[in-house]
Amino acid sequence: MAVQTFASTTDSANTVDLGPAAALSCRECGHRVPLGPVFACEECFGPLEIAYDFSGYDTEELRKRIEAGPANIWRYAPLLPVPADVATKPNLNPGWTKLVQADNLARELGVTGGLYVKDDSGNPTHSFKDRVVAQALEAARAFGFTTLSCSSTGNLAGAVGAAAARAGFRSCVFIPHDLEQGKIVMAAVYGGELVGIEGNYDDVNRFCSELIGDPAGEGWGFVNVNLRPYYAEGSKTLAYEVCEQLGWRLPDQIVVPIASGSQLTKIDKGLQELIKLGLVEDKPYKIFGAQAAGCSPVSTAYKAGHDVVRPQKPDTIAKSLAIGNPADGPYVLDIARRTGGAVEDVTDAQVVEAIKLLARTEGIFAETAGGVTVGVTKKLIEDGVLDPSLTTVVLNTGDGLKTLDAVAGTGLTATIRPSLESFREAGLV
Amino acid sequence: MAVQTFASTTDSANTVDLGPAAALSCRECGHRVPLGPVFACEECFGPLEIAYDFSGYDTEELRKRIEAGPANIWRYAPLLPVPADVATKPNLNPGWTKLVQADNLARELGVTGGLYVKDDSGNPTHSFKDRVVAQALEAARAFGFTTLSCSSTGNLAGAVGAAAARAGFRSCVFIPHDLEQGKIVMAAVYGGELVGIEGNYDDVNRFCSELIGDPAGEGWGFVNVNLRPYYAEGSKTLAYEVCEQLGWRLPDQIVVPIASGSQLTKIDKGLQELIKLGLVEDKPYKIFGAQAAGCSPVSTAYKAGHDVVRPQKPDTIAKSLAIGNPADGPYVLDIARRTGGAVEDVTDAQVVEAIKLLARTEGIFAETAGGVTVGVTKKLIEDGVLDPSLTTVVLNTGDGLKTLDAVAGTGLTATIRPSLESFREAGLV
Repeated sequence: MAVQTFASTTDSANTVDLGPAAALSCRECGHRVPLGPVFACEECFGPLEIAYDFSGYDTEELRKRIEAGPANIWRYAPLLPVPADVATKPNLNPGWTKLVQADNLARELGVTGGLYVKDDSGNPTHSFKDRVVAQALEAARAFGFTTLSCSSTGNLAGAVGAAAARAGFRSCVFIPHDLEQGKIVMAAVYGGELVGIEGNYDDVNRFCSELIGDPAGEGWGFVNVNLRPYYAEGSKTLAYEVCEQLGWRLPDQIVVPIASGSQLTKIDKGLQELIKLGLVEDKPYKIFGAQAAGCSPVSTAYKAGHDVVRPQKPDTIAKSLAIGNPADGPYVLDIARRTGGAVEDVTDAQVVEAIKLLARTEGIFAETAGGVTVGVTKKLIEDGVLDPSLTTVVLNTGDGLKTLDAVAGTGLTATIRPSLESFREAGLV
Repeated sequence: MAVQTFASTTDSANTVDLGPAAALSCRECGHRVPLGPVFACEECFGPLEIAYDFSGYDTEELRKRIEAGPANIWRYAPLLPVPADVATKPNLNPGWTKLVQADNLARELGVTGGLYVKDDSGNPTHSFKDRVVAQALEAARAFGFTTLSCSSTGNLAGAVGAAAARAGFRSCVFIPHDLEQGKIVMAAVYGGELVGIEGNYDDVNRFCSELIGDPAGEGWGFVNVNLRPYYAEGSKTLAYEVCEQLGWRLPDQIVVPIASGSQLTKIDKGLQELIKLGLVEDKPYKIFGAQAAGCSPVSTAYKAGHDVVRPQKPDTIAKSLAIGNPADGPYVLDIARRTGGAVEDVTDAQVVEAIKLLARTEGIFAETAGGVTVGVTKKLIEDGVLDPSLTTVVLNTGDGLKTLDAVAGTGLTATIRPSLESFREAGLV
C-alpha cells in the first residue's frame, strides 16, 4: 500500500480488521476517514486519532473477558485497534506490569491516601515504548507493510528492533550517528538495520518525513509517523491496567511524564473510556504532567497561563523526555486544567535525587524519566498542589540500566582489606 | 538469633512459621534438624536443604489455589518455605516471567517439537536472582535478622540491595573493589552499604565466612551462606512456572545454565515435586547443563565420565556463571546422567553469536548466561544429543543490558547524510 500523509474521503470503506477501531477521526474538526496509514486530516491538518465502535459491549461480560485474558496488554484487545486474535500473533506481549504499593515512599513523602508506582521497566525491552510499538506493529501487519521504522534517540529504537525481530518484519531505525555506544548496542543487537544520520535528532526526523513521501519508503511503517494514530493508542493500556489493578477503581491523582504529551492525553482517553463503559465509577480524577526543567515547554506554558506551548531547546539528562516542541502540548494543558491537575518541572539534580529516593525506598531503579515523575510528585506535595490524602499513582516509564550515567556518582560505601579488623575500622557495625 | 554454621539436634522444635517447610534435612546423610539459619550438617558436613510436609494437599484444590494466586512466585507459596501470608509482605514479587514460544529460533535450530525460552530478564532487577533472594528475605524475617548481606560480582548485589530496600532491611553487600563502575552503580543505587574488598572474589567469600562466625555478623542474613537452604529453593519456581505455562505439562527437555549448579538441582527437585503432587503427568524428562568453555568444570567432568568435579580458574565473559568450584557439581552430574541429559559448554565467541541469534529471532536480549544456554542448545542439537522433535525449554536467566560489553562490537549498519540520495547510495533499499 502506498504511503499517504493525509486521509481522503474518496478512500473506500475499511478493508482491514482492527477490531473495534471504526475509523480515523480528526481531533480538531472531527472529520472521519477510513482506517489507513495516515496521520493528518485532509481538511484542517489536525492529528487523526482512532474512533471506536464499542456499541454492543455488556459491562460485566467485558469485565469478565478482560479478567480472563492474558497477563499482557492483549487482555484489553476489545478496546484497542487490533484484531480479536492478536494474542496468537508473534509479538512481545508487553504490559500488565506491576502496580507497586509504595508504602515506604509514601511515608517519606507524607502521602496517606495510598501511593502506587506503575513500573513499566518490567516491559520486554524495559520501557513503556513496547506498549505503543505493539499497536503500531499490528497496524503495520494489517496494512501489509514489511519494514518497521522510526527515528529515535533511545528507548524506541530498541522497542522497534525487538518487536520487528519477533514478528518477522525487517526493521530500519534512524538515529543520530553520534549517540552513546551503549545505546547503539542496545538497538543494534536485534539485528535490524540501524542507520546513523550525520546530524541531530531534528535532522533525523526531517529525513524520515522525506522518506515517507518517497518511493524508497514504500512498504515502510514508521511507528511514530504514518502509524502514529495506532501507536499512540498503546498508552491507553497504562490507564486500563492502573484501574484494574486498583480493583476497577480510578486513581484520584496520577502523575505522568511529558515528552510529546501523547501518553498523558491517551491516559485521559483511557480513563474516560472506562467510565463510559461502566467499568469504573464515574468520579473526578486529576492528571498531573511532569517535565524536566531543562525541557519544560508545557510546564512553562501552564505556569504562565498560556494555551500555546512555545518550543524550547532541550538541555536535560532526561533525554527520553527531551522534546522541545511537544505536538500534544496544548491538549496536555487542557487536560491538566480541566481535571484540576497541574504541570510541574524539576531540575536535573532533583531528578537524580528522586531516582535514588525511589530505589532506596521501593527497590525500583528508574530511568531519568521516572526520576522526573517522582521528583515532580515530591515537589507538588511540598507545594500543596497534590493532595497527600488521596490515592495517587506515579508512572515509571523506563529502566535505570539505560541511563546509568545519571547516577554515576553513586558508588562504594567503603573499601576495606579482607579482614574483620579492617571491617571494624570502617565503622560499618 | 546468634549465627550458627551447623545445625544441632539439641535445638528445640521449629519456632518459626515457614509454611510447609518442616525441617532442614542433610542431602548426604538425611539427618534432620529444626528450621534455622544453618547450612551444613553437624553429622557429616553435608549441605542442608528444606524438607517439606505436603501431606493433606488435594491435587485439584492445590491446582486451583495456584491458578487463582498472584502473577508472581507467591502463587506457589504452598510449595515454598514461606508463611502463607507472604504475598501481603513488602517484597519485590518476582517471577511469573514470560515463557516465550520461540518459533523463529526453533526454525533456525531445526527444532520441530516446540521450543520455548523462559525469560527471567523480566524479573524486577532483571535476573533470576530475585527469585532466590525473595526466599532468603522471608527466612531472614522469620529468624529476626535485620541486615541482608551477600558476596557478589553482579546480579546478586542488585537483587539483594533492591529486596532489602523494599522490605525495610539494612543491606550490606561485599564485592571486589575493582568491579566495573557500571556494576557498582547498579548495586549502589538502592542505598544500602556496598563494601569493596581489596582482593578477588575468593577473598570476598573468605571474608564473609569469617564475618558469619564473628559477633560483628550477628543479626546478619547472608542470603547465599547461612540462609542458603531457603535461598536455593527459589529456583524451584522456575520449574513450577514452566510446567504451569505449558498447561501443567512437563517439558521433554530443559537446558539450564550451571554456576554453582544449585539452580539445576532445584529445577529437578521442583519437577519431581509436581509429579509427586499429581500436578503433572509422571513421564521422563531430560535436564541438560550449560557452561562456558572458559569455566566448564562440570562439563569437563561429565565428558570424562567422572563423578568428581575438578576446580578450574574461570576465564570467560559469562561472569555470572564463573564459579570454578561449583558446590553442586556432583549433584548436577548425577541428574544429567539419571535423566538422560548431558552437560556441554561453548566458547565465548559462540556465546556472543547465541546472544545475537536470540535477539534477532525473538527480540530477547539476554545476558551472557543466556548466550551460554542458547549456544549449548544449538551445539547439542548439531551433535545429535538434544532431540529436536521434543518439547524443549531453554532458560534465559538475565538481561543483556547488564553485559553490554559482550556485544560491544555490534553497531551501525551504515552512516549517511540526512538526504534520500545518501540513503540510496548506502544500498538500504
